[in-house]
Amino acid sequence: MPGPLGLIAGLGDLPVAIAENAVATGQGVHVLRLKGFEEPRLAAYPGAVVGLGEIGGVLSRLKEAGCRDVVFAGIVNRPNFSDLKLDLKGAALLPKVISEARKGDDALLRVLVQEFEKHGFNVIGSEVAHAALLAPAGLIAGPPPSDLSMIDLEVAARTAAATGALDIGQGCVVCDGLVLAVEAQEGTDEMLRRCAGLPDTIRGTPAARRGVLVKRPKPVQDRRIDLPTTGVSTVELAAAAGLAGIGIEAGGALMLNRPAMAKRAEELGLFLYGFPASLGTG
Amino acid sequence: MPGPLGLIAGLGDLPVAIAENAVATGQGVHVLRLKGFEEPRLAAYPGAVVGLGEIGGVLSRLKEAGCRDVVFAGIVNRPNFSDLKLDLKGAALLPKVISEARKGDDALLRVLVQEFEKHGFNVIGSEVAHAALLAPAGLIAGPPPSDLSMIDLEVAARTAAATGALDIGQGCVVCDGLVLAVEAQEGTDEMLRRCAGLPDTIRGTPAARRGVLVKRPKPVQDRRIDLPTTGVSTVELAAAAGLAGIGIEAGGALMLNRPAMAKRAEELGLFLYGFPASLGTG
Repeated sequence: MPGPLGLIAGLGDLPVAIAENAVATGQGVHVLRLKGFEEPRLAAYPGAVVGLGEIGGVLSRLKEAGCRDVVFAGIVNRPNFSDLKLDLKGAALLPKVISEARKGDDALLRVLVQEFEKHGFNVIGSEVAHAALLAPAGLIAGPPPSDLSMIDLEVAARTAAATGALDIGQGCVVCDGLVLAVEAQEGTDEMLRRCAGLPDTIRGTPAARRGVLVKRPKPVQDRRIDLPTTGVSTVELAAAAGLAGIGIEAGGALMLNRPAMAKRAEELGLFLYGFPASLGTG
Repeated sequence: MPGPLGLIAGLGDLPVAIAENAVATGQGVHVLRLKGFEEPRLAAYPGAVVGLGEIGGVLSRLKEAGCRDVVFAGIVNRPNFSDLKLDLKGAALLPKVISEARKGDDALLRVLVQEFEKHGFNVIGSEVAHAALLAPAGLIAGPPPSDLSMIDLEVAARTAAATGALDIGQGCVVCDGLVLAVEAQEGTDEMLRRCAGLPDTIRGTPAARRGVLVKRPKPVQDRRIDLPTTGVSTVELAAAAGLAGIGIEAGGALMLNRPAMAKRAEELGLFLYGFPASLGTG
């Protein structure tokens, strides 16, 4: 047992997704939110708020929490080093941090990673944690999509690309070529719930599944933040709406607890399919 | 009292809108659905199904129902005259109908109108009934839109034009430039209900109204059928969602019982505004 994931977190969706995924997979998470960059959605997780200069405090808290794996994730603006409140360990590291910081953020982070590894932690890059969450390409789980489902998937991918370009949202549902629903501010779960309430003449049913949910990022957005996120509840709500499957842009959307999503999709008879980013954008 | 409106109805949204409007305004309606072209949404209204050749039957039914105003509306394909089941009056009219029919649908209809007027009915063209239902241009009711509301209206008009061009739907809600919701198959009422459930940080409230619902036809659609329709419930649901007003494409969307809509908008403090078809399509 590696213990809970140690998450040293700044702002944004990625640390939230990493925390959610760690809980969803059962590993659990211990979140140290960085002072001045406290992501509000992480407040409910076990952990603490720590200052940027409290390196010793961070190390001891992670040890106490039983963490072995540690990830840095989220947005943190580079601090003014002269304003930092330092603990002993922070003060000892400061000269090296300042000299490396001149070489860029990566070099700065490398100093911290070395320090954490010296103390026995396994540091996972946020890109690595991120990549593990991204949807892969091709059939991920469930039965292979029928030809009709692949057409619905393509229409939905094109529609979501268009509504994304209009900055409306990141998802839509298409059945037999008809756009059943477009996601805006209500979110995916709410969109799927209303699809389940549409007349079953224009949608599928659990007994005769048809139609596809597509999730993909807006073309305009910064892909490091606010990527569309899917999880077990997405699979279950899509199933309840009678859909045949879910299309997720490969490399463009996050899957929280992919093994559990795949298992649920198999049980319910839905496909999960990673479509290429080029689909429907030509 | 003119008695209920006599509606001789084929298929489509226009006869449905005319029937709804006649009920909404309190006139009431007596619906004679034409055999072979029975609009299912009209089945619940008082009336009957009549054959295309039963002219005498139609006249006597309208008299019995106390109708004075009569309107022909809806889609009816021209019948094969030799297949028609005729009553006495129908048989008497047939030679004239056939000779006029050669000149076109308008001429054919003119024969029928003359016959109805000979029997004391006041025949209203479906274009006239239609025109009375269409939204006019400019401020229709309520307080003049603020500058911010006019910007929301323009963003919403542009968004609805784009989603309409994608054949998604005929409406959307925008607040402070953010697209709160896009209408697809769920319909306007359902879209407004979910707006009322969004966090009130991104939407208005009845105490501090902001945001605009826009309804406009899809650019691709045949404007004689399936025009977007608004009514008193649209005003009330928009009010409950905290919106500042409703933008309706002038000449491009129907208003059922416009006087009652205007009254309700005044009471609730929302504007109803007919925007030009050119807005947001450039």
